[in-house]
Amino acid sequence: MKRIAIQGTLGSFHDIAAHRYFEGEDIELICCATFEDVFKSIRHDSQVIGMLAIENTIAGSLLYNNELLRQSGTQIIGEHKLRISHSFVCLPEEDWDDITEVNSHPIALMQCREFLSQHPNIKVVEGEDTALSAEIIKKEHLKGHAAICSKAAAELYGMKVLQEGIETNKHNFTRFLVVADPWQVDELNRHRNREPNKASLVFTLPHTEGSLSQVLSILSFYRINLTKIQSLPIIGREWEYQFYVDVMFDQLLRYKQALAAISPLTKELKILGEYEDGKSTL
Amino acid sequence: MKRIAIQGTLGSFHDIAAHRYFEGEDIELICCATFEDVFKSIRHDSQVIGMLAIENTIAGSLLYNNELLRQSGTQIIGEHKLRISHSFVCLPEEDWDDITEVNSHPIALMQCREFLSQHPNIKVVEGEDTALSAEIIKKEHLKGHAAICSKAAAELYGMKVLQEGIETNKHNFTRFLVVADPWQVDELNRHRNREPNKASLVFTLPHTEGSLSQVLSILSFYRINLTKIQSLPIIGREWEYQFYVDVMFDQLLRYKQALAAISPLTKELKILGEYEDGKSTL
Repeated sequence: MKRIAIQGTLGSFHDIAAHRYFEGEDIELICCATFEDVFKSIRHDSQVIGMLAIENTIAGSLLYNNELLRQSGTQIIGEHKLRISHSFVCLPEEDWDDITEVNSHPIALMQCREFLSQHPNIKVVEGEDTALSAEIIKKEHLKGHAAICSKAAAELYGMKVLQEGIETNKHNFTRFLVVADPWQVDELNRHRNREPNKASLVFTLPHTEGSLSQVLSILSFYRINLTKIQSLPIIGREWEYQFYVDVMFDQLLRYKQALAAISPLTKELKILGEYEDGKSTL
Repeated sequence: MKRIAIQGTLGSFHDIAAHRYFEGEDIELICCATFEDVFKSIRHDSQVIGMLAIENTIAGSLLYNNELLRQSGTQIIGEHKLRISHSFVCLPEEDWDDITEVNSHPIALMQCREFLSQHPNIKVVEGEDTALSAEIIKKEHLKGHAAICSKAAAELYGMKVLQEGIETNKHNFTRFLVVADPWQVDELNRHRNREPNKASLVFTLPHTEGSLSQVLSILSFYRINLTKIQSLPIIGREWEYQFYVDVMFDQLLRYKQALAAISPLTKELKILGEYEDGKSTL
């Protein structure tokens, strides 16, 4: 039985993503209040696997999680892309006219701005988590309260779905990373039968003309394909930039050779993980 | 007198950024509820100038604002980088023990997570804006309520500052863009005595090996320096990527030549604006 630390509670999008990624496997969730706690769980018990959102097509990159990941020393072992759809849910005996307050995670509230602006009389109150908001309303029998959460969470906690698909933008996907203690990676990969075809890297470059272009040229000569690039200024080091890069490749050996080739041109090159390109699911 | 449309109210960080950018000039603010409304103001009256947050060192890029900007057809005419510092403020006659609820903009609440987690008994309730939260508490004399907003907003609305600098990360900077109707750009630039040394571009590339590396190599040959790069997948077009790129240059002519040189290799190349590199202020 694998133990998976997620940020959020049962029924949260992290829960759904974890079950999709580990489909067919027996998993037990460790529900954490914060992303820091997910990494703490792994530090505390190296057998624990973490699952964390890293970017969303609407909200953008979770820069803070990138930074936590880089500092944690854990390795990415996989990814999953989940279509995020929000529902507006309440106690089973209530209806639209009863609702005076809505509770959810700040990101979920932001993703439903258009829906919320059509209901200006409903007070918007932040909660820690989407599913937890539903759970609390049910447990404490909070009349007049609605939650914004997944349909799965509504079913799990026996809540009534007043409206489905209330997210402003339907192209709302979140990419989740599966991370593990570096000492566990080989053991975990032994059970996957495919070689990695994707890697996440972070490196620093001097802020001079062409330094990035040189690195990308080398990757291109080695037929390594970029699937994501994001620059981040390094605070306090005005003349250097940090780059988060995702690459895909056909041959693991070619990729390793490319890494060796770019290494002298970069500073603080760090491999955040080498893994298999993830599936997208609804 | 210039009229500047901002998202937020008097005392908001947009207000502060607008006054810093237009220092010494007579400006009148048009306070808008949403970023969409900022662009609507400009469409409605082409003399109006917009000011909008585009990225934050902690929260990352505001992808949605990038998209609004691209679709609006307005041009960036300048930028300002503002250090964001939050204060915890309440009614002048109240103190720490009285506070049971805190109101602010969701991003501000997120940036003060550590402070909020040290005060678990204070209920976190989302508001539309940082300064507006302070204003409402003062106007409606909401006892027990605190707001998270700038010190300037606290002073403006006569609120008591219980604690300053409550943001988790002190390296918290937001970059604001100044945007205008394209027909007004020449007129507005006539009053600035310096040539632009920075540009924001967006373009699409086929998802093939080396396409980005070719574009960046050309920029490097022309001595154009990259200060930001961010890739965005284009939903529904699996094999193409969109890139938001900021570049800096010494000679405007060289930059124009470089643009001409990369143009055949890119699709949908769009200049979001050519402007002067902005100052950073506290």
